[in-house]
Amino acid sequence: MQSINELWQRYTAFKAMDLSMNMSRGVPSPEQLTLSQEMLVNLATANDCRTDGIDCRSYGLLTGIPAAKRLFSEMLCVNSDNIIIGGNSSLNMMFDAISRAWCFGILGSTPWGRLSEVKFLCPVPGYDRHFAICELFGIKMINVDMTPEGPDMNRVEELVSSDPAIKGIWCVPKYSNPDGTTYSDETVRRFARLKPAAPDFRIFWDDAYCMHDLYEEGDKLLDLQSECEKAGNPDIAYIFGSTSKISFPGSGVAAFASSERNIRDAERIISKQTIGPDKLNQLRHVRFYRDINGVKAHMRAHAALIRPKFEAAIEVLRREFADCPEAANWTEPRGGYFISLNTADGCAGRAFDLAAEAGVKLTNVGATFPYRRDPRDRNIRIAPTYPSVDEVRTAIELLSVCIKIAYCEKNC
Amino acid sequence: MQSINELWQRYTAFKAMDLSMNMSRGVPSPEQLTLSQEMLVNLATANDCRTDGIDCRSYGLLTGIPAAKRLFSEMLCVNSDNIIIGGNSSLNMMFDAISRAWCFGILGSTPWGRLSEVKFLCPVPGYDRHFAICELFGIKMINVDMTPEGPDMNRVEELVSSDPAIKGIWCVPKYSNPDGTTYSDETVRRFARLKPAAPDFRIFWDDAYCMHDLYEEGDKLLDLQSECEKAGNPDIAYIFGSTSKISFPGSGVAAFASSERNIRDAERIISKQTIGPDKLNQLRHVRFYRDINGVKAHMRAHAALIRPKFEAAIEVLRREFADCPEAANWTEPRGGYFISLNTADGCAGRAFDLAAEAGVKLTNVGATFPYRRDPRDRNIRIAPTYPSVDEVRTAIELLSVCIKIAYCEKNC
Repeated sequence: MQSINELWQRYTAFKAMDLSMNMSRGVPSPEQLTLSQEMLVNLATANDCRTDGIDCRSYGLLTGIPAAKRLFSEMLCVNSDNIIIGGNSSLNMMFDAISRAWCFGILGSTPWGRLSEVKFLCPVPGYDRHFAICELFGIKMINVDMTPEGPDMNRVEELVSSDPAIKGIWCVPKYSNPDGTTYSDETVRRFARLKPAAPDFRIFWDDAYCMHDLYEEGDKLLDLQSECEKAGNPDIAYIFGSTSKISFPGSGVAAFASSERNIRDAERIISKQTIGPDKLNQLRHVRFYRDINGVKAHMRAHAALIRPKFEAAIEVLRREFADCPEAANWTEPRGGYFISLNTADGCAGRAFDLAAEAGVKLTNVGATFPYRRDPRDRNIRIAPTYPSVDEVRTAIELLSVCIKIAYCEKNC
Repeated sequence: MQSINELWQRYTAFKAMDLSMNMSRGVPSPEQLTLSQEMLVNLATANDCRTDGIDCRSYGLLTGIPAAKRLFSEMLCVNSDNIIIGGNSSLNMMFDAISRAWCFGILGSTPWGRLSEVKFLCPVPGYDRHFAICELFGIKMINVDMTPEGPDMNRVEELVSSDPAIKGIWCVPKYSNPDGTTYSDETVRRFARLKPAAPDFRIFWDDAYCMHDLYEEGDKLLDLQSECEKAGNPDIAYIFGSTSKISFPGSGVAAFASSERNIRDAERIISKQTIGPDKLNQLRHVRFYRDINGVKAHMRAHAALIRPKFEAAIEVLRREFADCPEAANWTEPRGGYFISLNTADGCAGRAFDLAAEAGVKLTNVGATFPYRRDPRDRNIRIAPTYPSVDEVRTAIELLSVCIKIAYCEKNC
């Protein structure tokens, strides 16, 4: 490794560059958004607004237009009868699923809000907005370590089967946030075969990156709902997806899929909550992508824009840490939106602060853990999609220097 | 009145016409929707999608774009700082307001879901979807009669001040659903001066028809939030509005306005529920209407389409009941979406059935009351906007015959 003096010199040079970069969230670049621009003008006439005999400008169709259900059915590998299309946010649909369980229970169970304790399992590192929902409701979060195959299933099985207060687990099963891990077939099967102590335990399966391959040959995720049905466990999974990182993050379409019983249970409540989601926006998407092959072609265009950014980041990391592998390791995902980097224990916070001081804002350290506490102070989530390739190179080089300084301060 | 034989003859002639009409809901006609068609193509380029320095295609702005807040601030007469823009449905925002109170309480109060009893006051006749939310949550509904000035405020004051289990009241203060009544200034002031036994009592002020004048000179509704502030009661009102019946019922924009404290209280929770609503749809609306004057001009075009339908309905009713005023009376609203008709007691259900048998589906009798029970079996809500003028005439003539038959069967 370079000496600490050399590292400080490099750091000072970065500071002199007066950088101002925000890499804190997984945000598509403007070039990615413009790929979908035509979608915004494809409903010109009243006739364009009709599909399946419905005037999409008006009220009706509580759970979405059939054409949108067909598209999500292909994306999420679920039966199109058992899908509820929502508004623009799958996060909102997850929140509402918990809120419904809180107020009304699930399939006749006691409303969670009347229980003395509710717990969720949280594979870590994970997605901060999942954890924020739990924290708001006062749901106690239990960390479960991620492995290269997905969450540590021995631990998941042990906890879920023994504690009836455990009502759920958060999963991002494909290109997980932030590790980029795709759950192995065996992991998916073990999820499907879970025997929870709580009959109203649900797997919250946030398939946010189902279409987000960076390479022609993408990871393959086993279809959870089919496995659950095979295992005689049809009601255990809630599956969520959206086009937030396919079309527009602010104006995409979200969906919730599950067993017929779960969907009817949710519909009973949603039918009092709304007359239905924005059908014109569903129709825009359907007209623009046509079908799953249209989405795949579109995602290849996304990949062409963002793959060089992932590769640039990884190239810099490999180079910077070639002579000091003890200071950091990272994931090299084949899809999704993040690279997950682990410093040596106790160095992430310091590296984050140094990078921020030099003008590069990363995801808050700790954000990838429940209660914003990374017990080993080591995980840093890198979101390379928004900046340019050159900016990514600069930011990751700076970050590497910061990590090495933090490492030296502690260990040299 | 005609003899019952003559009435049956007329009824039989209607049946022979093989009518098939659905007048059950307040739905804009396709011609009304087409007035906003251009809104669907006004965001063609990436640059069109920018406003106030924001790329509306991407994440961010939890509570909506400033330009949309300005527009709703003018429509709802509230401070634009204290508005949350939502998705496409104000009903959804009302449901969520109750759901938040249920799970988290209001400004630190006990969550309603932990209380042994929660009650709401329901001015009757009223809006079925308000009542359906209460029924779902198990909130006990108490009827309060409507008067020509709005709800019976003596009764409201008496109940609200004496019972801490009463947590809310549903109001449609302008062109009320279904009566078309606009609350008088004195009614609004008495609302603002309420002294509820429950500190977390809220007025749910559904200002759905704030812009929906049928005539050049519209009813004037006093601004509730200002009156509440003057009365030292700033936190008592939740105000809701939407463009559902201005632009597109399925794809409009909804808003929630209240005091600063209430809005911050809601934001704390909403910030965990979503990253923000569909900003492109907000921007479409802002670009299309520009400001309140644009909305007013647009609503004059709506009025030109639907006023003849209201007038046709009223003309037929006046003619049909000229010689038997004891059989029915009705409201003659100057705005909104409905005519509210009261038959003599005990005749509404029978008239509804007869009309349905002849091919005209009206709003279910009882729907305008909590638990779908009209204690006097007399209220029929007429929704004249969707059918053509000729269809309205036919339907109302048929309905009149059905009411007179029902009246004769009971009273002649």
